[in-house]
Amino acid sequence: MASYDDVMSLSVRRGFLWPAVDLYGGFAGFYDYGHNGVLLRRRWEDLWIETFLGLSDNYYLIDTTTILPEAALKASGHVDHFTDILVTCTRCGESYRGDHLLETKTHEEHEGLTPEEIDARIRELKIRCPNCGGELGPARAFNMMFPLGIGPMGKDRAYLRPETAQGVYLNFKREFEALRRKLPMGLAIVGRAYRNEISPRQGAYRMREFLQAELQIFFDPATFADLVPIGAAGSEPLRIAWAHEKNEPTADDVSSKDAVGRGLPSWYVYHLIQVQRFYLNALRVPRDAFRFAELDEKERAFYNKIHFDVQVKQESLGGFKEVGGVHYRTDHDLKGHESGSHAKQSITFGSSKLVPHVLELSFGVDRNVWALLDLTFHKGERAVLRLPPRLAPIGVAVFPLVNKDGIPEHAERVYAQLQRRFTAFFDDSGSIGRRYARMDEIGTPFSVTVDHETLEGKGVTVRERDSQKQIRVKEADLPDTLTRLLSGESSFVA
Amino acid sequence: MASYDDVMSLSVRRGFLWPAVDLYGGFAGFYDYGHNGVLLRRRWEDLWIETFLGLSDNYYLIDTTTILPEAALKASGHVDHFTDILVTCTRCGESYRGDHLLETKTHEEHEGLTPEEIDARIRELKIRCPNCGGELGPARAFNMMFPLGIGPMGKDRAYLRPETAQGVYLNFKREFEALRRKLPMGLAIVGRAYRNEISPRQGAYRMREFLQAELQIFFDPATFADLVPIGAAGSEPLRIAWAHEKNEPTADDVSSKDAVGRGLPSWYVYHLIQVQRFYLNALRVPRDAFRFAELDEKERAFYNKIHFDVQVKQESLGGFKEVGGVHYRTDHDLKGHESGSHAKQSITFGSSKLVPHVLELSFGVDRNVWALLDLTFHKGERAVLRLPPRLAPIGVAVFPLVNKDGIPEHAERVYAQLQRRFTAFFDDSGSIGRRYARMDEIGTPFSVTVDHETLEGKGVTVRERDSQKQIRVKEADLPDTLTRLLSGESSFVA
Repeated sequence: MASYDDVMSLSVRRGFLWPAVDLYGGFAGFYDYGHNGVLLRRRWEDLWIETFLGLSDNYYLIDTTTILPEAALKASGHVDHFTDILVTCTRCGESYRGDHLLETKTHEEHEGLTPEEIDARIRELKIRCPNCGGELGPARAFNMMFPLGIGPMGKDRAYLRPETAQGVYLNFKREFEALRRKLPMGLAIVGRAYRNEISPRQGAYRMREFLQAELQIFFDPATFADLVPIGAAGSEPLRIAWAHEKNEPTADDVSSKDAVGRGLPSWYVYHLIQVQRFYLNALRVPRDAFRFAELDEKERAFYNKIHFDVQVKQESLGGFKEVGGVHYRTDHDLKGHESGSHAKQSITFGSSKLVPHVLELSFGVDRNVWALLDLTFHKGERAVLRLPPRLAPIGVAVFPLVNKDGIPEHAERVYAQLQRRFTAFFDDSGSIGRRYARMDEIGTPFSVTVDHETLEGKGVTVRERDSQKQIRVKEADLPDTLTRLLSGESSFVA
Repeated sequence: MASYDDVMSLSVRRGFLWPAVDLYGGFAGFYDYGHNGVLLRRRWEDLWIETFLGLSDNYYLIDTTTILPEAALKASGHVDHFTDILVTCTRCGESYRGDHLLETKTHEEHEGLTPEEIDARIRELKIRCPNCGGELGPARAFNMMFPLGIGPMGKDRAYLRPETAQGVYLNFKREFEALRRKLPMGLAIVGRAYRNEISPRQGAYRMREFLQAELQIFFDPATFADLVPIGAAGSEPLRIAWAHEKNEPTADDVSSKDAVGRGLPSWYVYHLIQVQRFYLNALRVPRDAFRFAELDEKERAFYNKIHFDVQVKQESLGGFKEVGGVHYRTDHDLKGHESGSHAKQSITFGSSKLVPHVLELSFGVDRNVWALLDLTFHKGERAVLRLPPRLAPIGVAVFPLVNKDGIPEHAERVYAQLQRRFTAFFDDSGSIGRRYARMDEIGTPFSVTVDHETLEGKGVTVRERDSQKQIRVKEADLPDTLTRLLSGESSFVA
């Protein structure tokens, strides 16, 4: 729990992330990552891959190009419909998102309005340019994709992808044929996406270039529910804020049975449970800082039939904010590519022939990284980042207690051994207390100290970040002990 | 050792990589990766990071945006000089790289010629359009960057980065201040870069969107040699093809002393040694399939003073091909950004004030992945991919020997345990021989089989891919044994 400035300050100071290109006066909507940020993000990705590929032995990784030809994005509907409403000041030329202008004035959400509706509301509310007070021009749809020309004449029109999903859909048929020819089949991707945001003024929350982790699950709607029984997913209630109750501050505890009772398909509820588990168990987000928020028809993207946002409560961003979504995209995309490419997307599976439907589990990696920093950063007497051990940039630090009597040399050997297996960090500068403090602030879960007793064959001390307690471990056992502690196979008992 | 078609066929069949967007008739210069390709690439990245960050405790990871504003790329020289020579047919409109037209005709390299020189050679050699026989138009410089407009009016001109390096240079000063304020300082990045290649016809070798792994080392030229003594780097001779001898088929064995004797700075030779080690020891490239190739003044990029390509011999690409480079970029880039941004890039370090020089270790990740597939794929009686264990997409496979007597259930428990620590794969389909064969073809180094003796407490068998030999391992020891085998801490002895 920390303010935006607290998190950004830690982030800049300790090399997680910071605004890009400050040398040339900044570059709104773009952020660079430092050493600890790259490592934290990479660990999050590894855990995400492990968790969601673990849902089925028919789920796989894929990676597709960030540039896609116009024909593909025309077929997916993005060329015509992937728009925000743009309003420009007639006097100073400043540009705004229409819905944001209304939100600022009314403190209510206004997604899904047409340009005409926005214009009417602007007149009604007498909104003028927030920058200069000038009159605002007419609202118009603005496509958020970045266009590109490919080839020496730039003739082949293409776009930076606005989501990772489309490249995956283009590969559906070949992957189905190449893999086990079974449904559900999942294709998971971690990669960049790009959106030309009209006014990316919400700091690290709204980026023009960002990283997504998305799992596309291709399934037969006639049989999916039987293949993912809710019973097997456990009985923990879901945290849900329903669409018509969204301005209320808290989510309800909803049993999976009640969720199905409200009309959600049971396979959809099954995946809500899996996503919630990832947040509560793997990422260790506190239960009251997590919820699903249902989106109504006006708020949903044009390709979604059921859409719940995944939201995490963040002091730094003023409350619950979207970090992902669970999207039932139906057969919209594959059908679109079928008519766009004239290549049949139907498959024969068992006795039925069908174009599969798609459930998309979508996550913003940068937003998840930010949420983790927000939730785990504890200021106060001792600044500490209580990251789950598996996510910590540095797994283990090694310190010589003093810089004499052969202790540093011995510590370097311990360090060299641990480096073979872990991301380790050696530090012999300053007092041992300061060295612990530095590791606490970047979330290093375990610190190993070599002291005089080590030289007498009595092992090293292992200090745990949160409890600050220490245990003594034999040197021969150290790598395996740390492997078990970091993987969660065993827990720290002092 | 395999033909291009062999490697591409394995690659498509086993889900490493394949040409992108075939649904819409292809997308020249773009490739997608499948499950095994993503994992292999990720392992290569991990090993690269470990190796090159391991060179110094003052080397760090960084990740910067793939889009950069025009001002930055103007200052770096890319807007004016990052060009190829384009020749277009006056009849059919087909485009060609001028140097490639000459190469096809003469079988000699022609890098670094001006448009006028290309025109003269085309006339002299009477070259006509390879496509239609028509007359070729005048050669002209063509900028290979993809331009973009940022913001709602697209007013802010930007480019997709043509190399990862520039975003790193923009962060040099802040990273120097934030980190240990010591030189040499290294910043390593793994990320995409984009080049609008005129005619990307060399398959997976020349891509328009590709992944780079680059380490930028910032140093003081007055003291660098003393900080990286060649003696410490070992005495193994370097494999070098000198610029004036480049059309000869073999590289010389050159001692580091002789390399320095020919005028290379000793710190440069030190890094050639480190790069060669990465290829020979970590990636296990055969010595005679590796070489450095010196580039002369005409061939070098405009920002390089010393430039050796890193080349690997690949049957599939017809011989030695570039997979990386060791580039001495001097203070060209930081000085460029200093005058472009009017922000001083000099630092005070010890008693001297300087703008650091840069040594860049640059690697094409896709090209390295391809080279590994080429070198480790062995067809013949048994198709096997002899990847180093650390690089294998799947670390360990688990098989029940037969599907009865409780053996599958026991094997699933073993699998579940190993999954906590390794990328594991469970397979109970087909004969045990076919299951081994599938794992051999994607390079899985170890396969664990659960049989009747396992149920009697006699452990499982572990079969090694290359020797096909088996050992029996107690179940309790299995995770730690596999950890040591995969990390190289211990080796397989049957």
